[in-house]
Amino acid sequence: MAGLDDGSSVRFGLRRLLERLREGVPPSAFVRGLRLRRHFRGAGLILALPGGPLPTVINKGGTIDVESCSFESGVRLEVMSGAKLSIGKGVYLNRNVHIVVGEAVTIGDMTKIGWDTVIMDTDLHGHSGRPAVSRPVIIEDNVWIGCRAVILKGVRIGRGAVVGAGAIVTSDVPPLAVVGSPRAQILFKASSPVD
Amino acid sequence: MAGLDDGSSVRFGLRRLLERLREGVPPSAFVRGLRLRRHFRGAGLILALPGGPLPTVINKGGTIDVESCSFESGVRLEVMSGAKLSIGKGVYLNRNVHIVVGEAVTIGDMTKIGWDTVIMDTDLHGHSGRPAVSRPVIIEDNVWIGCRAVILKGVRIGRGAVVGAGAIVTSDVPPLAVVGSPRAQILFKASSPVD
Amino acid sequence: MAGLDDGSSVRFGLRRLLERLREGVPPSAFVRGLRLRRHFRGAGLILALPGGPLPTVINKGGTIDVESCSFESGVRLEVMSGAKLSIGKGVYLNRNVHIVVGEAVTIGDMTKIGWDTVIMDTDLHGHSGRPAVSRPVIIEDNVWIGCRAVILKGVRIGRGAVVGAGAIVTSDVPPLAVVGSPRAQILFKASSPVD
Repeated sequence: MAGLDDGSSVRFGLRRLLERLREGVPPSAFVRGLRLRRHFRGAGLILALPGGPLPTVINKGGTIDVESCSFESGVRLEVMSGAKLSIGKGVYLNRNVHIVVGEAVTIGDMTKIGWDTVIMDTDLHGHSGRPAVSRPVIIEDNVWIGCRAVILKGVRIGRGAVVGAGAIVTSDVPPLAVVGSPRAQILFKASSPVD
Repeated sequence: MAGLDDGSSVRFGLRRLLERLREGVPPSAFVRGLRLRRHFRGAGLILALPGGPLPTVINKGGTIDVESCSFESGVRLEVMSGAKLSIGKGVYLNRNVHIVVGEAVTIGDMTKIGWDTVIMDTDLHGHSGRPAVSRPVIIEDNVWIGCRAVILKGVRIGRGAVVGAGAIVTSDVPPLAVVGSPRAQILFKASSPVD
Repeated sequence: MAGLDDGSSVRFGLRRLLERLREGVPPSAFVRGLRLRRHFRGAGLILALPGGPLPTVINKGGTIDVESCSFESGVRLEVMSGAKLSIGKGVYLNRNVHIVVGEAVTIGDMTKIGWDTVIMDTDLHGHSGRPAVSRPVIIEDNVWIGCRAVILKGVRIGRGAVVGAGAIVTSDVPPLAVVGSPRAQILFKASSPVD
């Protein structure tokens, strides 16, 4: 059985690889993906797109399960001892996405995450004499997270939701909702001409 | 006429180049600028300052018009098919400014944009069954945009306005106004001493 | 006396160096620290951790006093003519912390600053005909500043306070308080299914 499974899995991986090449993914993304893949448990086809530094994976004794997905350059994954990061299939992490896992972060299938977004399930630091708090983050399927978002501990983002650029998310987002941080307001209005 | 024009334009460019060198701009900025200039239509004197990676220009079939202006390292310009980016003269883009153009982004003369600022005229991604929306962004003359700002689709920023550090701008800013995102508030107040 | 002082200071530095090595700090951090140290007045033991570019120090004629502390890669310190930056002992600056000093920035002992945080005591640019304004920033002892925060001119952050990830701080923070920027809100709620 193991032999059969391996064979079909290799054939399936090969088929997907050919599809991606036809879509215009550069061959270097597969080679870089192989270098990244060794950090993951049971990974499928990993694309690590060129254009900057290879993603950094710092695993201090947790587990990282990644299905077939795509990483742009500069992504950073940090997983602490005993913690668990799961990334579903078809997920896309844009440049410099940074995920810090103290306990558990789960990202559902087909979710897309914009550049410079930070996802942390831990405060990393206690305060007022209390220890640092970690609470799992769950991002469901088909979520789209804009660039520069910050997703903090204990948040669940429902399937199909959209998180606007620069949003700081500290509470749950219902499925299909669109959330954003409060926008800029006028602080000062001038009447004199600028010279 | 073409010959005369070329001659006077070269003389004018040379005069400006000598002025900038006297101001202390490093000669490497001119050499780097020549490498950047080939991405632009009708560019004047382009300074691409040293200190990090040369700006990245990803033009997927749009047009980029840039007059004489200065780019710090790490700037990133992405222009989609049929889209148009126009940058006026004397504009200064600080480190890692990132501009994404789905339809049209216009930046007026002498505008200065702080480091890590993102300007996007497109959502890049639809939601709730609707397609992605693009609406032109217009930043007029003499605007100053602080570091880490995010300027989103459909926004017009009037001449001489100031956008504060970290502001997320989703609606128009009148000329000469100063805008900023809501600032940090106290979430928790402790009375016990920290040991 | 000078001879005695030097001797005891060297012995003390050596003891600390051995302690840090036992804690697992890589030896390269000490070597990189020596390269960084020459920018500082009266620096103690400086650790410049590996993993990215050495911190950038741009001193245009001010003074930088740093006691024994740790810098991650990509930190950027800019000090203008006549300005003063003071960093206390045991301070930790994470990746890409960026400090711009137009007049005076003081950081107390044992304060920890998260990645991508910006601290500026100056607007760098005037508006509406007024010149740029600088007002000193004081961050007291044992403060913890989360990632991506922006600390602006004239702010004093009291001892033991915590600044949340992504917070934009424009007014004083009392000792031991926790502050954060307003969080994302629902902009749009869909009821139709996502296909």
